Amino acid sequence: MREGLDVLEAQQLILDETPVLDRETVATRDALGRVLASPVESARTLPPADCSAMDGYAVRVADLAGATGAAPRDLEVVYEVAAGHTGERPLAPGEAARIFTGAPVPEGADTVVRQEDTEAADGSVRVFVDPPVREHIRDAGEDVRQGEEVLAAGHVIRAPEIGLLASLGRSVVEVHQRPRVAILSGGDELVEPDGDVAGGRIVSSNSYTLSAQCLDAGAEPVYLGIARDRPEELERYLRAGIRADCIVTSAGVSVGDHDYVRPVLESLGCELHFWGVKMKPGFPVAFGSFSGPRGPLVFGLPGNPVSASVTFEQFVRPALRKMTGHAARFRATILARIDHAMTKKPGRLHFVRVRLRREGDEWVASTTGNQSSGVLRSLTQAHGLLVFPAAAEALRPGDSVRVQLLDDGFLASETAGLDELPTPA
Amino acid sequence: MREGLDVLEAQQLILDETPVLDRETVATRDALGRVLASPVESARTLPPADCSAMDGYAVRVADLAGATGAAPRDLEVVYEVAAGHTGERPLAPGEAARIFTGAPVPEGADTVVRQEDTEAADGSVRVFVDPPVREHIRDAGEDVRQGEEVLAAGHVIRAPEIGLLASLGRSVVEVHQRPRVAILSGGDELVEPDGDVAGGRIVSSNSYTLSAQCLDAGAEPVYLGIARDRPEELERYLRAGIRADCIVTSAGVSVGDHDYVRPVLESLGCELHFWGVKMKPGFPVAFGSFSGPRGPLVFGLPGNPVSASVTFEQFVRPALRKMTGHAARFRATILARIDHAMTKKPGRLHFVRVRLRREGDEWVASTTGNQSSGVLRSLTQAHGLLVFPAAAEALRPGDSVRVQLLDDGFLASETAGLDELPTPA
Repeated sequence: MREGLDVLEAQQLILDETPVLDRETVATRDALGRVLASPVESARTLPPADCSAMDGYAVRVADLAGATGAAPRDLEVVYEVAAGHTGERPLAPGEAARIFTGAPVPEGADTVVRQEDTEAADGSVRVFVDPPVREHIRDAGEDVRQGEEVLAAGHVIRAPEIGLLASLGRSVVEVHQRPRVAILSGGDELVEPDGDVAGGRIVSSNSYTLSAQCLDAGAEPVYLGIARDRPEELERYLRAGIRADCIVTSAGVSVGDHDYVRPVLESLGCELHFWGVKMKPGFPVAFGSFSGPRGPLVFGLPGNPVSASVTFEQFVRPALRKMTGHAARFRATILARIDHAMTKKPGRLHFVRVRLRREGDEWVASTTGNQSSGVLRSLTQAHGLLVFPAAAEALRPGDSVRVQLLDDGFLASETAGLDELPTPA
Repeated sequence: MREGLDVLEAQQLILDETPVLDRETVATRDALGRVLASPVESARTLPPADCSAMDGYAVRVADLAGATGAAPRDLEVVYEVAAGHTGERPLAPGEAARIFTGAPVPEGADTVVRQEDTEAADGSVRVFVDPPVREHIRDAGEDVRQGEEVLAAGHVIRAPEIGLLASLGRSVVEVHQRPRVAILSGGDELVEPDGDVAGGRIVSSNSYTLSAQCLDAGAEPVYLGIARDRPEELERYLRAGIRADCIVTSAGVSVGDHDYVRPVLESLGCELHFWGVKMKPGFPVAFGSFSGPRGPLVFGLPGNPVSASVTFEQFVRPALRKMTGHAARFRATILARIDHAMTKKPGRLHFVRVRLRREGDEWVASTTGNQSSGVLRSLTQAHGLLVFPAAAEALRPGDSVRVQLLDDGFLASETAGLDELPTPA
């Protein structure tokens, strides 16, 4: 087992051990956010035939040569074609068909004139334009051709993908499975939120934070509960998680006398790959895996609430994203100016909780204050984690820093941003 | 009723008519992504007492004056305090208590020395440091004080908020209700995905796309089904949606002869506020509301798949976000360089489907190709919508443009971005 890795080394080691999960078949309408496990080929051509893009009249261009507002042409309207219907017979010279958006263009017609360029009369239509061939006609196969690959394996399913799959008649789709994550808290001091906190007991909030982080990452949390500090109880709880894709424990994997998780995990067949990552908060992180193809990955996170959440973000979340089939496994980062000085000893990478605000074209980052790893509230006030690199010792006001965003929705805006073109640079 | 509004005018008019929904009480663990409807005050002080931040020994500073590695001090270990327990009695001079992370510091002790700075013996401990007062002690109330407001109304609940609420013993929380959105397709040509598409019929894909867009916006879709082109059937379907917070129809609200939705809506008591927005795709958008405090907002979207999805993004999504209590109601936008020329007539704002790629420090936008409003597949290939402003006529290669991102997860990264500080500018 290795000790004291750099953050990047630890992330790489974890991703190397992390499998992409196998496939399952789900209903298309439940597939939002999932990742395709196999390419989707179309069994249909869409649109299946040339069809009208407007409400108007299907006509023959030859009948309208030279037509203008001042010199219109009158055509006989022989039938109408609504979407979902087809023309009764081919159009003959001098004939028009009333046509609606999406309706197949009848045989014989070679263009569509918009309703606005016509005037309807009893049984006939007056046309005021001389249209080009195939105007306002959507070509058969313009969207999709039969047999074509329309979505590649690895494609993330968003709303338009669900609509496209529906339009191809695909009511189910093959995606990668969502990881099940068994979450275990350990400690005699812990109670559930409705428990009695007298005598120094505290709520096991980590299981709540970590479960929500699993949901946010697209995984399915399975909360095993609070194991007391006894090896036999820990073993019983861990066995309950052994068929999950990941086990995430918080607390219990440090050097304290009361920490039984590590020996119990090893006795169950888990090989620990590393302990300790050069970061703050969060040094005492452990990572292991069970031998054999079906054993879960095991993440031993620190017990302090902020350390647990920050180490989940750095190590568990990328693994869960890989399992789910995502290529982009890491949180978005942005560049920001820091508005105050910070110093630290070199050696550990610090993740500093910061708030972000916009000043002109730039983001400005300010610390949330108290960076104690017990202060969960500071994380609720933070927009992101400022990356203070391991080797660095000082940041000066105005320095450019990278900030890892803690929320995919953070960049949503209070304004639409549609007002004008940006100033050319 | 007004006609032919600018996009921003239409958005503003809609938001002015849109209520923030009232409150409901939900389980804290189900509250991810919801918005607080009332502030949260703490009934607890956290931590409730001074407690140890490390595994080590609670001691009296006065006993260790001048202690070093070469000149250690021996103290008698009189009991141990684990987290969730309290000390048996005050510490007397010359005494130490074994203490674990999170455990209350016993009376009499005024600092904690780390285990690493000690050597345990039988019944005593040898200490190699002369610590300052209150080292490795977390102050009572460091995180939260009783009676303090810890989260404000309007705060969005993310994972750390769920952990914080749990740690305060709050198993339920007051949030704004999620809007229910009744979705209706209309047209004789439409079938469900498993339906027969012979004879020019097409799948009602809009209801699938729009339902997924509702979920993505945090709303609850209620799919009413496909109404045929008959006023009495439309009325029956619309009545089924009248107790929702929004009704979203696609197709049926244009100038075509077969469009009955508008008169039917008016006959039910809906006042239409506008019809037509100067944009492409998507001009034929209608917006209305029912008089009285409980009537739904009504959005009549165009029938073309891309137009329906793009107009949902611009008009329905911001309204749903407002209903849910969000202050940030609009999609994130980024600046990008365009890599090809584009022209259009002035007058309508164009939303151009584009792919984005990173080149050095910049984003570069390229059109997905065919911008026909029937080509849903182009939307599955798009990362965003390039904003080609209404008044503009031409964009040249290299011009800076604003791109509305279609997916909150788009900026997620394939790399962690932790390697080094950005180059100072």
